[in-house]
Amino acid sequence: MSELQDIAKTAREASYIMASLGSDVKNDALANVARCLKAAKDEIFAANKTDLEEAEKNSLDAPLIKRLKFNEDKLNDVVSGIESLIGLTDPVGKVTLRTTLDDGLELTRVTCPIGVIGVIFESRPDALVQIASLCIKSGNAVFLKGGSEALNTNKALASVISKAGIEAGLPEGWLNLLTLRSEIADMLKLDEYIDLIIPRGSNSFVQYIMQNTNIAVLGHADGVCHTYLDSEADPAIAMKVAVDAKTQYVSVCNATETFLVNEALKETLLPELIKTLQERGVEIFGDDYVSETFGVEKAEEWHHEYLAMKCSVKIVKDVDDAIAHINRYGSGHTDAIITANKENAERFMTMVDSGSVLVNCSTRFADGFRYGFGAEVGIATSKIHARGPVGLEGLVSYKYRLVGNGDIVGPYCDGSKSFKHIHHDI
Amino acid sequence: MSELQDIAKTAREASYIMASLGSDVKNDALANVARCLKAAKDEIFAANKTDLEEAEKNSLDAPLIKRLKFNEDKLNDVVSGIESLIGLTDPVGKVTLRTTLDDGLELTRVTCPIGVIGVIFESRPDALVQIASLCIKSGNAVFLKGGSEALNTNKALASVISKAGIEAGLPEGWLNLLTLRSEIADMLKLDEYIDLIIPRGSNSFVQYIMQNTNIAVLGHADGVCHTYLDSEADPAIAMKVAVDAKTQYVSVCNATETFLVNEALKETLLPELIKTLQERGVEIFGDDYVSETFGVEKAEEWHHEYLAMKCSVKIVKDVDDAIAHINRYGSGHTDAIITANKENAERFMTMVDSGSVLVNCSTRFADGFRYGFGAEVGIATSKIHARGPVGLEGLVSYKYRLVGNGDIVGPYCDGSKSFKHIHHDI
Repeated sequence: MSELQDIAKTAREASYIMASLGSDVKNDALANVARCLKAAKDEIFAANKTDLEEAEKNSLDAPLIKRLKFNEDKLNDVVSGIESLIGLTDPVGKVTLRTTLDDGLELTRVTCPIGVIGVIFESRPDALVQIASLCIKSGNAVFLKGGSEALNTNKALASVISKAGIEAGLPEGWLNLLTLRSEIADMLKLDEYIDLIIPRGSNSFVQYIMQNTNIAVLGHADGVCHTYLDSEADPAIAMKVAVDAKTQYVSVCNATETFLVNEALKETLLPELIKTLQERGVEIFGDDYVSETFGVEKAEEWHHEYLAMKCSVKIVKDVDDAIAHINRYGSGHTDAIITANKENAERFMTMVDSGSVLVNCSTRFADGFRYGFGAEVGIATSKIHARGPVGLEGLVSYKYRLVGNGDIVGPYCDGSKSFKHIHHDI
Repeated sequence: MSELQDIAKTAREASYIMASLGSDVKNDALANVARCLKAAKDEIFAANKTDLEEAEKNSLDAPLIKRLKFNEDKLNDVVSGIESLIGLTDPVGKVTLRTTLDDGLELTRVTCPIGVIGVIFESRPDALVQIASLCIKSGNAVFLKGGSEALNTNKALASVISKAGIEAGLPEGWLNLLTLRSEIADMLKLDEYIDLIIPRGSNSFVQYIMQNTNIAVLGHADGVCHTYLDSEADPAIAMKVAVDAKTQYVSVCNATETFLVNEALKETLLPELIKTLQERGVEIFGDDYVSETFGVEKAEEWHHEYLAMKCSVKIVKDVDDAIAHINRYGSGHTDAIITANKENAERFMTMVDSGSVLVNCSTRFADGFRYGFGAEVGIATSKIHARGPVGLEGLVSYKYRLVGNGDIVGPYCDGSKSFKHIHHDI
């Protein structure tokens, strides 16, 4: 057995203890993590300085270096994140179904931790703190693999957090930091020990993870989000929302990448949309009509995530044409319709196969914090398990508990007894 | 593009229409399927006769031939199954979360079909009818691959059901029968078009499916279920439950395969258990102590599903030792404790990592019908998505709907507006 397998086995065993911890122990552990991070800030900042120097030496991009920085501000952010997490309801132990099968035979369905989570995250070391905290709150053991640029910072953070948790009652092995890139491939094979992988990072990286493991993956490879301007769109709403959805913050997964415009608006809203976006500095890539009429580049491919001041614009016949385009070329992430027509809005929301479907508002709203979840685990485009913005609920499963008094199935099979199946409200 | 891909693309498109159907259309379709099956019974029975003759010619096992039979009784069973399905609540369109993000900006989470389901089932042709009906009720398009022994029966059933559905308003391509074994491997690659695979069949077959696809799989490879007799077990309850759990029906996944006995019971309940089981014809495989003391065979491997009048018996130190054994050698399916000690029961239910955890009753209760779900999709041992016995809920996902009136995120980002996040009771 490899060393990683040994670690995974220990994590699996730790996960059973994690599952049995009460809310008070988990909240104490979170409080202790916050306390210990503050107490160890000098050694954490020193480790971060080493990473930053190394990054300068390797001439990393400025944005990457910015994400890599872990200073007093970042520390305050993660500490206040932990404090708000303490205030959230425990996602574990919720009764979600209760049925009396027969006199004295009581079935309940209760939420429980998933078990062992593997998280692969980008260069930001603050992500490590967030993920570890979410796993404490939800009672999961965790494997962490961060970007190699942040190795020293991650080691310092993981060591402080792991110890602080154990001091407060978490089991040994609840948190494990992987430090080698080669360990990612090894981790993807540990389907016996790891229940869920959460990859964060570039499209191609997430795609690689999804293609190379039998472990369930929570996440999204890309966000090709659409905003469709219906024939009955209110012009003021359409312009306001379009500008926000495209330009408010371009490098995020919920920014609109493609505008679909109803052909009835060819001579009214379409030129206004093009002009408004261009004035804000957005480069347009159009279908044949848009490209010829407005003298812009032709769009090469409709499944395209720009993550930049660029977007595609296409004419569609009607709401069904828009739905068909989105289901074919979208990524199942977030799509919006701008319309005053309730029927079209309803049809769009029912038939667009995405995690979030929006009416008369900006795609940028699709986010766990804006949705009021308190904490965000990620945004999932899969339809299995969690979908859309995922809060703490995405880190729990459930189990059925059946309590009887010597009950056996025989009498129910030969017909001498029959079930009552009294379903109780929760 | 291969022919199968073409079919899958059509199924994907059909799934969007399926998602938009009201409960009335789906229930009408179910009623029409029941009607048409009865009307076409002669041709279905004739096709079944061909399969049965072929099976005799190939000298198939008697139990296999029995499962293959589709006669008047089986027809009545599936028709009454469809009728009870019509009476169940529509699993689609349920609002499971409602939050006012801000004035006039309303978030709801609504259940929706998963999309396209691929089901691979064993020789029983009645399974085809059940699966197709469950998919109608839950609004999913479906791929079906049945056992080759039942090819003619499956073709007849699929043709009747597909047409009956379309007559009643389901879209073309909602049901697709695969007829070649080689198409299974092809289907497993269609992760772009198929959202969930439900394999039914032998352990090794399900294991093969789980190892060879990136599509999510709902199911279980095996059911290594345990019953643990605690030091505080009531002797009468222990014997009654043990006999039912092991002998009531041996070839099913929720039958107990291993008894764990607290060492305090070595000279009391243990000999009684061995004697009682042996009297019923159960062959015992024990650990060193059990094997030597009672002169029975030694158990070769603890992760072992007998599906026969055989079981393993092992002495454990205490409830924690039992929990550790189950988490190590079990299959996460169903495990029971027999005890009068509430603390041990609670510890067992919390720490045993299985879909169903039971106290003082038979493992044989772990079943969708006995749990009162009305319909059973399967039993899942994965902790992602559905777990344990899975009812119609396992065939739905959800999406977030956000309805505004020109709302944009800009003002919330620059601090000029803030969210209200009013969470409403459902």
